[in-house]
Amino acid sequence: MFEKVTLIGIGLIGSSLAHVMKREGLAKLIAVSTRSVETLKRAEEIGLGNIYELDAGKAVKDADLVIVCTPVGACESIAKTISPHLKEGAIITDVGSVKASVIAQMKPSLPGNVHLVPGHPIAGTEYSGPDAGFASLFEKRWCILTPDEMTDKGATEKLKLFWEKCGSEVEIMDAHHHDLVLAITSHLPHLIAYNIVGTADDLETDTRSEVIKFSASGFRDFTRIAASDPTMWRDVFIHNKEAVLETLGRFSEDLSSLQKAIRRGDGEHLFELFSRTRDIRKSIIEIGQDVEAPNFGRDDGEE
Amino acid sequence: MFEKVTLIGIGLIGSSLAHVMKREGLAKLIAVSTRSVETLKRAEEIGLGNIYELDAGKAVKDADLVIVCTPVGACESIAKTISPHLKEGAIITDVGSVKASVIAQMKPSLPGNVHLVPGHPIAGTEYSGPDAGFASLFEKRWCILTPDEMTDKGATEKLKLFWEKCGSEVEIMDAHHHDLVLAITSHLPHLIAYNIVGTADDLETDTRSEVIKFSASGFRDFTRIAASDPTMWRDVFIHNKEAVLETLGRFSEDLSSLQKAIRRGDGEHLFELFSRTRDIRKSIIEIGQDVEAPNFGRDDGEE
Repeated sequence: MFEKVTLIGIGLIGSSLAHVMKREGLAKLIAVSTRSVETLKRAEEIGLGNIYELDAGKAVKDADLVIVCTPVGACESIAKTISPHLKEGAIITDVGSVKASVIAQMKPSLPGNVHLVPGHPIAGTEYSGPDAGFASLFEKRWCILTPDEMTDKGATEKLKLFWEKCGSEVEIMDAHHHDLVLAITSHLPHLIAYNIVGTADDLETDTRSEVIKFSASGFRDFTRIAASDPTMWRDVFIHNKEAVLETLGRFSEDLSSLQKAIRRGDGEHLFELFSRTRDIRKSIIEIGQDVEAPNFGRDDGEE
Repeated sequence: MFEKVTLIGIGLIGSSLAHVMKREGLAKLIAVSTRSVETLKRAEEIGLGNIYELDAGKAVKDADLVIVCTPVGACESIAKTISPHLKEGAIITDVGSVKASVIAQMKPSLPGNVHLVPGHPIAGTEYSGPDAGFASLFEKRWCILTPDEMTDKGATEKLKLFWEKCGSEVEIMDAHHHDLVLAITSHLPHLIAYNIVGTADDLETDTRSEVIKFSASGFRDFTRIAASDPTMWRDVFIHNKEAVLETLGRFSEDLSSLQKAIRRGDGEHLFELFSRTRDIRKSIIEIGQDVEAPNFGRDDGEE
């Protein structure tokens, strides 16, 4: 599909892309670039690519497709580094969880003869690094592309086909709308999970070890999300500030009214909310975005 | 182990107890009692017991062990109903997520010649009702008993052995301490999950369907918890008000400081918190309270 694809950043998403590109034969050559000597060495040991470069500028030479797989805060400096070395007509994309900021960071530096088509695969796990990747990560998961009206239709089509070959279903969306939807479905849940695990971490030693011991009562679900990559998530919150603060505001208002209901012993208010929320779960299972098995099926085969 | 065990309430926990008692031969007779005609009929269809009674008073006749498996708000009225019919020396226990309130509700009504040993198995799924139960629910899960200094040691020992035969590890704890620890590990996580799913449910129709569609980015984890039984959880919050409001207060303070960090673009603050929370996840996996597999292993065999 492509002569040469360059992956800049080789964490969970980058390494998963390397695996699936190899399995599906999507690139003749895969160039891997990362700033860290150790990570690059590890990528080579695993055999994720054909070319390994610390210098992103060298890595993108002759590439038809460049995929930036770093935390979103690195996009501006990467755009500046690679711009002078890009091949005419190359497609530049990324995998970041925030889209408007990526466009603002990259577009001004990129030359006019390449195609920026920002992207976001809605896929991941709580693990990170080049060893965390696997070929089926994107299977049946959404990938959102956020080109603007100026973006070359052919480039968008080609990138769409690429993600479909990686196993994804592709949706085209406005960048700002993406950032708002993801603030609710992803950024706020991560923020809340980090916060509650942080609150528990601040407890006195004795109580904290009890929290860990009895975590199966609900808390453990939050710790999985709160084990996600710190650098990636720091950048998400900094770069989607507005939408995150807006959704956090709504969440806090609702929490205040829930707090009031508890304080007043208003069982009806609680029951009404707790009944409503069940329907959303049903919808998610119906469209195949989660498993029906109790406790996500994690405890054992019988559950 | 017991001649006759009476289960009052036959939802997820009650029906799971019926299954495991049968498998392990823990009772010669199992009496099932519930206020709902339909639920009782369903329990009989599944064959969960030997005796089926709408009247809890009749059901506890001659029972050596009575296990109250209803939402915690029903304990006071159940204690009043069963008190005149209890056998001398019977052990009375429950499975509620709140312990001090259960003691306050039941103790005054129970006769002096029976043994109240409150209990809480830390086990469950997001499903409820007599069809949701299964024999292995309690396996390798904690069960906390909260007797006081007056409680008969023999009765506590016998109930401990019972839970161990159900597969649980048993911990003895003070009732108020239990309520505080569970407020953090269970009640607050449920409250937060209900709240965030409620916030999403309030969105305009279009955005809401996008939230469901892209829920795999984090949100879906919360919807599982927020699909838990509404009646049970209404009662938990009403009956553990003080501890829940206390932990909610800490959570809200921490969330405000996180909000401030995002507003100010304070990446260091965010990174520090997001790094700290990873360690708690590691501890939980180390002690076997959750699986190590990415995404709880739910997506497919390969993940």
